[in-house]
Amino acid sequence: MTSNHIIVLDNRPQGEATTSNFKLITAETPELQDGQVLVRHHFLSLDPYMRGRMNESKSYAVPQPLGQVMIGGTVGEIVQSLNPKFKVGDQVVGMGGWQNYSVVDANIVGALRKVDTTNVPLSHYLGAVGMPGVTAWYGLVKIIAPKAGETVTVSAASGAVGSAYGALAKARGCRVVGIAGGKDKCDYVVNELGFDACVDYKEHQDAASLSKALKQACPNGIDGHFENVGGMVLDAVMLRANAFSRIAVCGMIAGYNGAPLPMSNPAFILMNRMKIEGFIVSEHMEVWPEALHELAEMIASGKLRPRESVAQGLAAAPEAFLGLLKGKNFGKQLVKLV
Amino acid sequence: MTSNHIIVLDNRPQGEATTSNFKLITAETPELQDGQVLVRHHFLSLDPYMRGRMNESKSYAVPQPLGQVMIGGTVGEIVQSLNPKFKVGDQVVGMGGWQNYSVVDANIVGALRKVDTTNVPLSHYLGAVGMPGVTAWYGLVKIIAPKAGETVTVSAASGAVGSAYGALAKARGCRVVGIAGGKDKCDYVVNELGFDACVDYKEHQDAASLSKALKQACPNGIDGHFENVGGMVLDAVMLRANAFSRIAVCGMIAGYNGAPLPMSNPAFILMNRMKIEGFIVSEHMEVWPEALHELAEMIASGKLRPRESVAQGLAAAPEAFLGLLKGKNFGKQLVKLV
Repeated sequence: MTSNHIIVLDNRPQGEATTSNFKLITAETPELQDGQVLVRHHFLSLDPYMRGRMNESKSYAVPQPLGQVMIGGTVGEIVQSLNPKFKVGDQVVGMGGWQNYSVVDANIVGALRKVDTTNVPLSHYLGAVGMPGVTAWYGLVKIIAPKAGETVTVSAASGAVGSAYGALAKARGCRVVGIAGGKDKCDYVVNELGFDACVDYKEHQDAASLSKALKQACPNGIDGHFENVGGMVLDAVMLRANAFSRIAVCGMIAGYNGAPLPMSNPAFILMNRMKIEGFIVSEHMEVWPEALHELAEMIASGKLRPRESVAQGLAAAPEAFLGLLKGKNFGKQLVKLV
Repeated sequence: MTSNHIIVLDNRPQGEATTSNFKLITAETPELQDGQVLVRHHFLSLDPYMRGRMNESKSYAVPQPLGQVMIGGTVGEIVQSLNPKFKVGDQVVGMGGWQNYSVVDANIVGALRKVDTTNVPLSHYLGAVGMPGVTAWYGLVKIIAPKAGETVTVSAASGAVGSAYGALAKARGCRVVGIAGGKDKCDYVVNELGFDACVDYKEHQDAASLSKALKQACPNGIDGHFENVGGMVLDAVMLRANAFSRIAVCGMIAGYNGAPLPMSNPAFILMNRMKIEGFIVSEHMEVWPEALHELAEMIASGKLRPRESVAQGLAAAPEAFLGLLKGKNFGKQLVKLV
């Protein structure tokens, strides 16, 4: 038994989420049963989808239960094992939640995956070579399916999904244009991530103004878009969408906290014969091996060098998570736990 | 040379379209050149897409030029021919426009198609066995692609597209639920077209109320929807859409006359992993033979018995067209010209 710190959801947000929705508790880890392992988490991943789980209302997933450890992806090492397939020292990625340790039945398919850190830093298995990377891959490759020479865009371009999307789109011969908040992020998207251009949405008050900036950045219009945000950004992109354009909808972060955000002019779906498709990457496990292989190669070869925002210690997780929802992070948001 | 009556677009609508946007003129038909035929129109088709063409603003098609004959589908007979492939008396479908006669270069591929009225009345080639029928077929078969047992819905259910959609969906083992305006239309949709249920949108003030009625009519939710209208109807359908549901967007009739109609809650696209796709049937000519074959069989066998609203004489076309935009027609809107 090991002393464990755990963050649970204490109560559901009324409107905007706050740190008081969470509670940090201490407990001993349960004794291992046959087949189980004890994982010490090195990093916890913070992701926008968690905000959806905090609500009781209809979402695409089961709500986070009150009083239980917050859901979350983790990477760490096996520190105790009653499972012949895992030995102490193995590095693993899993869904350990907001806590320092987790006890996992390692016989459950997909519960833990061993990873190799020879060429890929451990934390990247929560980002570019993990769920966010595969998310970018699925939206780009399976929904947008761009041809070389097409223009594709992505909101939240400096984040974990956006940076992987940019590298994957460049590898397919696309013009790739980011949308991000602030000059620093936009400079990073162009200068470090290698996007062809980046538009700062914070410089624009409305969709019409943002759409003018997109017109400059996308002189041939937009053939594919990956939506992480919704609202004004989506409206502006639709004003520039070409005939037969495709939009992969992965996030509607701007809508979680308040009234639903409308789509201003769905008539463009008809006028431009668009396809708009929502997806959740965990429902497409069949693509993960192919996607992870390409993403790991990009990291190993230096074609993809994603940035990370790292908060220190479990107690810092709620504040870092709320910052993420407001776009305060810069790159993949992690919490370092060791 | 034959004396011809022609309706031209005289000026563009400011807001709502009115009869004063149109002008009826008289002219002699031009003398036939080699390869041309003179077609006497029996029926003119009136369709919502024409409203879009009346605007100068961006649409999916070239605007209707001012001072020229209004675009429109027609069926008629060859009354004079300088083309060896067509003889006097042949019955043909084409895009003759709002006029009594048209001179057509019959060598242009697709300009005229000979039709057989042994088992299918001539007028139906403008409806169930024409563009509206193929439109229903494409949206249902190629975008919604329903499995037997799924629930599919359609707005403007009593119209030419809706009635074909219902028969095609029943033939595929679906539960099919219509949405239409008024008790008469809803009774017709269920009793004569054979839908499983029909919801009267005019009984509802908002999407929430309409969505409750849809819940009753669709106890297992909605797997596929064919959208002819947009606005409140689309919002209500999205509130009942199942995971992995598909919406084929064919019309946004409610938005043509005024401010763009928003989609209230696009977050459902993500939450329910929906696919929403706009299409124009004339861009998918490859499916027409297969679709027309199935539709003609359904008419011949009596499985599809669409209703027609027939206005008498070319001069009645503008009024009938404006009525169509307001849902005053009952079934496929035609103008009888002979």
